[in-house]
Amino acid sequence: MKKQWHIVEVLRQSRHDWLNKIQLIKGNLALNKLERVKEIIEEIVIETQHEAKLTNLNALELAELLMTYNWQAQHFRLEYEVLGDVCDLSIYDKELSNWCRQFFYILEEHADGNGENHLSISIEIGENVRFFFDYSGTITDANSLKEWLSSHMAGTAVFVETFQVHSKEMTVVLKIGM
Amino acid sequence: MKKQWHIVEVLRQSRHDWLNKIQLIKGNLALNKLERVKEIIEEIVIETQHEAKLTNLNALELAELLMTYNWQAQHFRLEYEVLGDVCDLSIYDKELSNWCRQFFYILEEHADGNGENHLSISIEIGENVRFFFDYSGTITDANSLKEWLSSHMAGTAVFVETFQVHSKEMTVVLKIGM
Repeated sequence: MKKQWHIVEVLRQSRHDWLNKIQLIKGNLALNKLERVKEIIEEIVIETQHEAKLTNLNALELAELLMTYNWQAQHFRLEYEVLGDVCDLSIYDKELSNWCRQFFYILEEHADGNGENHLSISIEIGENVRFFFDYSGTITDANSLKEWLSSHMAGTAVFVETFQVHSKEMTVVLKIGM
Repeated sequence: MKKQWHIVEVLRQSRHDWLNKIQLIKGNLALNKLERVKEIIEEIVIETQHEAKLTNLNALELAELLMTYNWQAQHFRLEYEVLGDVCDLSIYDKELSNWCRQFFYILEEHADGNGENHLSISIEIGENVRFFFDYSGTITDANSLKEWLSSHMAGTAVFVETFQVHSKEMTVVLKIGM
């Protein structure tokens, strides 16, 4: 299930993402919307700061999964942010990335491909580390998704604290037990 | 000698490169130098077009070498361009990338680390495919570099057509025999 990326392919995908941003700047510049250009640049900088923080969590598998997900996602678009001071999650990497990978896989199956679906992940680091998953979009079978979540509540060090699944949105809170 | 990159590290380096470009745009925007911003964007677009063409040569090892070289280069900075219609160089990939890797290695040894050294590579695709290497900078031992080139003139399908080494510049033409 895990795709093996060649470095040239990674750079191709990344270039594509960056060119989209550059085109956005170029387009607004052509319309002389300088304030919008400045906003876009600020957004880019903030996005890269979250990416850098994600990288610094030392959970390489998880970072790879989140940073490359949109290149192969089919039914939803993923965004993430990392809030709080960075800590070392390396020992949780395997379990975290496995849980997330399976979760995304199930979510792909339950997200209606015709809709606009988004999954937003906030990684909040405080006394504990929690992952807040906020999904908005269509869910074809909420009960089956609830069943999956119920049966994947507790791992060795990672467990689901709460979840709510509705027809058009879902929230899941995943906690790391330290 | 070949570095194995983790995808997260590749994205980190690439992000760093792109952020430099974004900062350049941001800086000129702050000074209201809009024409310069447009020029920078054009330069970025052209650079990515060369990168895309390099990728499309189907010589993945060579592409990886050239696209990641500046992340680990010590004594010179590398630039490249791909001119002409893209063709399939996959069968020459191994030999080409090996030759280039060794050449860069030797050049690192002969480039004075205190100077501003540049290696510019033009890959010209026509009836034949030629690599033009133009180096400008300091060379600590021109004779030894000439010796190396003399002893690495001909491979199975890749050979040095001409070379000139001076104290502050060097040109090498590498031809692929098709």
